[in-house]
Amino acid sequence: MGKINNKMINYKITVQYDGTRYRGWQSLKDRNDTIQGKIKEVLHKLSGEEIDVIGSGRTDAGVHAIGQVANFHMEELEGFTDEKLLDYMNHYLPMDIAITSLERVPERFHARHSARQKIYRYRIHTSKIKNVFERKYVYSFANESLDIENMKKAAGLLMGTHDFKAFCSNKRMNKSTVRTIYDIDIKPIYSENGESIDEIEIFYTGNGFMHNMVRILTGTLIDVGRGYKSYDSMQEILEYRDRKMAGFTAPAEGLTLMEVIY
Amino acid sequence: MGKINNKMINYKITVQYDGTRYRGWQSLKDRNDTIQGKIKEVLHKLSGEEIDVIGSGRTDAGVHAIGQVANFHMEELEGFTDEKLLDYMNHYLPMDIAITSLERVPERFHARHSARQKIYRYRIHTSKIKNVFERKYVYSFANESLDIENMKKAAGLLMGTHDFKAFCSNKRMNKSTVRTIYDIDIKPIYSENGESIDEIEIFYTGNGFMHNMVRILTGTLIDVGRGYKSYDSMQEILEYRDRKMAGFTAPAEGLTLMEVIY
Repeated sequence: MGKINNKMINYKITVQYDGTRYRGWQSLKDRNDTIQGKIKEVLHKLSGEEIDVIGSGRTDAGVHAIGQVANFHMEELEGFTDEKLLDYMNHYLPMDIAITSLERVPERFHARHSARQKIYRYRIHTSKIKNVFERKYVYSFANESLDIENMKKAAGLLMGTHDFKAFCSNKRMNKSTVRTIYDIDIKPIYSENGESIDEIEIFYTGNGFMHNMVRILTGTLIDVGRGYKSYDSMQEILEYRDRKMAGFTAPAEGLTLMEVIY
Repeated sequence: MGKINNKMINYKITVQYDGTRYRGWQSLKDRNDTIQGKIKEVLHKLSGEEIDVIGSGRTDAGVHAIGQVANFHMEELEGFTDEKLLDYMNHYLPMDIAITSLERVPERFHARHSARQKIYRYRIHTSKIKNVFERKYVYSFANESLDIENMKKAAGLLMGTHDFKAFCSNKRMNKSTVRTIYDIDIKPIYSENGESIDEIEIFYTGNGFMHNMVRILTGTLIDVGRGYKSYDSMQEILEYRDRKMAGFTAPAEGLTLMEVIY
């Protein structure tokens, strides 16, 4: 395909994916069963070149995205408008990955370095009766009831700028573990008759999250909800910076990267 | 397990399923890969008996249900409250089938014979960009635009009591092909910015639907929407009672049995 003046364009894309069958956005070994790998494959097919696709951050194996953001530099191809490029990518990507928008951005835009905030959603399905259509996108937690008021109090203590080392699964993390969480919004979803809670959605907004951090925060909030931990133990956990004091790592399937704000 | 006085109970259940991997509710040969078969298996495990599970009607391979209804007769088991029976069934059913309610009904209740109305929904995804999370529950039809106003006019002509032989895939049907459609409701779902239509949902309410009838009605309405047929050709199609004059059979994955009214 002909190129136009060898002009390099910086493209920003928004990516939606059902992460169920992938090893995450990117794996250490550059494998084919990652979302990043699938996008690179399509761009290679189109351009014949190895194009680096930079994500806003990694998502773990099994985690979903509605608004993951990535950018890549590619020479402009003759006859390929941006709309055509978007169509081409969606045509060749598998059914569980979609590019929902594509735009040209300034050279300095970098999906990871330029990101200011991220919003994640964690869905806990609490109804005894599973929802068969949503089963791959929620964590089923129907055996114990959760005290939402205590979870909200605990969430209040986690908001703000703290050293979140206790909520990081990487033991050899030698970079800063200080992050700011702007908001943790816990939303109960009531059943049709309004009598019971079918689902709890937790929205996390922060300036960045470490490996497994949202899932460990969620596991810890669930432990508060079921009475394994008191809500005010959050302060101690933050202070002692010890992973063992925080809760379990909630499973990947309940987690979705909703939005990256630049 | 102990039985109480050999007392037979007639149980009515509401069943939700993701039909993707099944050969439908029931197949001619009593196979294991049907929804009915899976429910029978669980009841056999519990009671040791072959229990007949009567559905309100068959759904085709790949068709989903939110409110399929069935009934079965079983002796009351000692220590098994209705709630426990519901839990037991959901525990042993696969992840893509759920019993959402269970109740005792009078002996005369028969899920098929007693049904008065059924409501089906057909989802046509019209956005160029696929929704990765809903992909198994919608028919992707993004290449041509659909004239919803003409589809609504055609639907208006299909409502009422007619001989729907043209919309029945069974050529050897020798029972009556007269049915009443009370309502066909065509709902456009707009994109977030309100500028385009992402999906069209069609709700069909009738006193009964023949094999493939909802899918052929949908294929015919799509043919009207894309201009292959005029909306007033519906009258002719009904009159000639010829399957070849109606439209294509829309794919199973877009169809969901929503409710059975008794």
